[in-house]
Amino acid sequence: MKIKTYMISLFVTAAISTSASVIAKEPVQPISPVKDINLAQVELGKKLFFDPRLSKSGFISCNSCHNLSMGGTDNIKTSIGHNWQQGPINSPTVLNSSHNIAQFWDGRAADLKEQAGGPIENPGEMASTHTLAIDILQSIPGYVTEFQQVFGSNKIDIDKVTQAIAEFEKTLVTPNSRFDKWLLGDKNAINKTELAGYNLFKQAGCTACHYGEALGGTSFQKMGLIKPYKTTNKAVGLAGVTGKDADRFKFKVPTLRNVEMTYPYFHDGEAATLTEAVDIMGKLQLGKQFTKSENTQIVAFLKTLTGEQPSFTLPILPPSVDKTPKPTPFN
Amino acid sequence: MKIKTYMISLFVTAAISTSASVIAKEPVQPISPVKDINLAQVELGKKLFFDPRLSKSGFISCNSCHNLSMGGTDNIKTSIGHNWQQGPINSPTVLNSSHNIAQFWDGRAADLKEQAGGPIENPGEMASTHTLAIDILQSIPGYVTEFQQVFGSNKIDIDKVTQAIAEFEKTLVTPNSRFDKWLLGDKNAINKTELAGYNLFKQAGCTACHYGEALGGTSFQKMGLIKPYKTTNKAVGLAGVTGKDADRFKFKVPTLRNVEMTYPYFHDGEAATLTEAVDIMGKLQLGKQFTKSENTQIVAFLKTLTGEQPSFTLPILPPSVDKTPKPTPFN
Repeated sequence: MKIKTYMISLFVTAAISTSASVIAKEPVQPISPVKDINLAQVELGKKLFFDPRLSKSGFISCNSCHNLSMGGTDNIKTSIGHNWQQGPINSPTVLNSSHNIAQFWDGRAADLKEQAGGPIENPGEMASTHTLAIDILQSIPGYVTEFQQVFGSNKIDIDKVTQAIAEFEKTLVTPNSRFDKWLLGDKNAINKTELAGYNLFKQAGCTACHYGEALGGTSFQKMGLIKPYKTTNKAVGLAGVTGKDADRFKFKVPTLRNVEMTYPYFHDGEAATLTEAVDIMGKLQLGKQFTKSENTQIVAFLKTLTGEQPSFTLPILPPSVDKTPKPTPFN
Repeated sequence: MKIKTYMISLFVTAAISTSASVIAKEPVQPISPVKDINLAQVELGKKLFFDPRLSKSGFISCNSCHNLSMGGTDNIKTSIGHNWQQGPINSPTVLNSSHNIAQFWDGRAADLKEQAGGPIENPGEMASTHTLAIDILQSIPGYVTEFQQVFGSNKIDIDKVTQAIAEFEKTLVTPNSRFDKWLLGDKNAINKTELAGYNLFKQAGCTACHYGEALGGTSFQKMGLIKPYKTTNKAVGLAGVTGKDADRFKFKVPTLRNVEMTYPYFHDGEAATLTEAVDIMGKLQLGKQFTKSENTQIVAFLKTLTGEQPSFTLPILPPSVDKTPKPTPFN
């Protein structure tokens, strides 16, 4: 992984230096490769990300709703939580999430580390408690040894757990999309329709919010800016965090990286297809009715944003022992 | 993977030829490496094994209950199915399952391929139908291309789906356990306590059922042979398949390979620990009360049966497209 990362890093650096002038003009930049990563924490965090013992049931892991086989999402309108509870909001992708200004749709967590602690003790998600989760991990010799190796202490706590998960999540970047290759100078990396879509995407004003490396994730915007968005979903967005009425229905602008894989769309998951999402965004956010042809072009462009998905060996989890608290899925 | 398999194969073959006389005397044999595998089918089957779109909810995959991070089980007494239904029986491990005489606890499927079709359309498990699952796969261009490459036909059907899943499952063998190394001549691979446990395991009669490469999986035996087994679990075992009253409570003898990872134990999952499982087996199947020391020795031996877990890259699933039937988790 280290070698691969370095190779990507060298490649991108070289490419950027030769076409810096091209990139500088664009509102979108190639996604940065991961760097300054603690690989020992990453390996531990990967196990924790896949470990359903962090949930009350022993059945739900981080990967259940941020499935790394499926664009870091669950591809369901709103997620399934403990006891099959219907979640209140669409699971945002964990891919490239280190680029986000804050975490969750309403930004209530400052960073990945703070985010990671949330679902574990959310009664509608993993429905455990930090205390129980730590008791479980602390009982497992394989974890105790690894925490000792990684953090120099065999005393497991939620701070170390979320630190390791966040460090793993930082590695989940998706470089080398066809669009990034185009940005870096490979003019054949995207076709005419896709390029027309990108130009339209800029001209129409989409890049006012969907800009930068992640094409989003860097600001909060009102859902339904020009025309109101109609939904039965009860999420109020940023207002729930700031308490300000002006922040009602302001949500973090989602990244458009890998958007082909992160369906369905919007905070309520009510847009099933990219065609639908582009149409609604045009009308509600930009006051624009895209023609069928324009919509097709923009959707074609959006599909060039699918990058290399994280590639790693499925982690093998250290087994529980006799004293490990048992999962209680049905009570 | 191919290279690795060959290397293991050469290693085992060489080792067997030098210590064939030792192995021949033992009721347990080293687990065979996987061979005669269609690697293209394996790669496709791996994707299908991890694909929750085979379930009605879009949330449950084969890997949900046969989690390859956790010994090929879910480590829950009885599994969680669609809509959080409590399953009727403990999920058996998929590891080394190609060695089983038949599949499921009651043997109602002749082989892995037949088994793979069951949970997809079981209303208490993935709750889909074969028709819907095939409609979904057939709508996904990435799958259509891969089925074409693998089977020479882009017409997806349940026969090809289960064939590919079964082929992947055949690769899930766990060679090179410490006990296998001992069997192959490395006398330091297990310690005195573990060896004493193995000798006791043989002397006490455990090997009457738990013999061969998988230490089980090759016969059906009555649960509660000497003394009746008390359980509230309603499974009747082989009788449900044969209709014979004599087969009531006969279950397929589970493999003991990786048993340290496949807790809890028995068809009802009611034995939480190996200590408890060994104690109950002694009493009910052999009419023997193991002393605490004997129990400890046998458990120590059983933990030497943990082999190398399957090592592979997490598959990335081809995304659904607009026409793909949507998951319906909540209705």
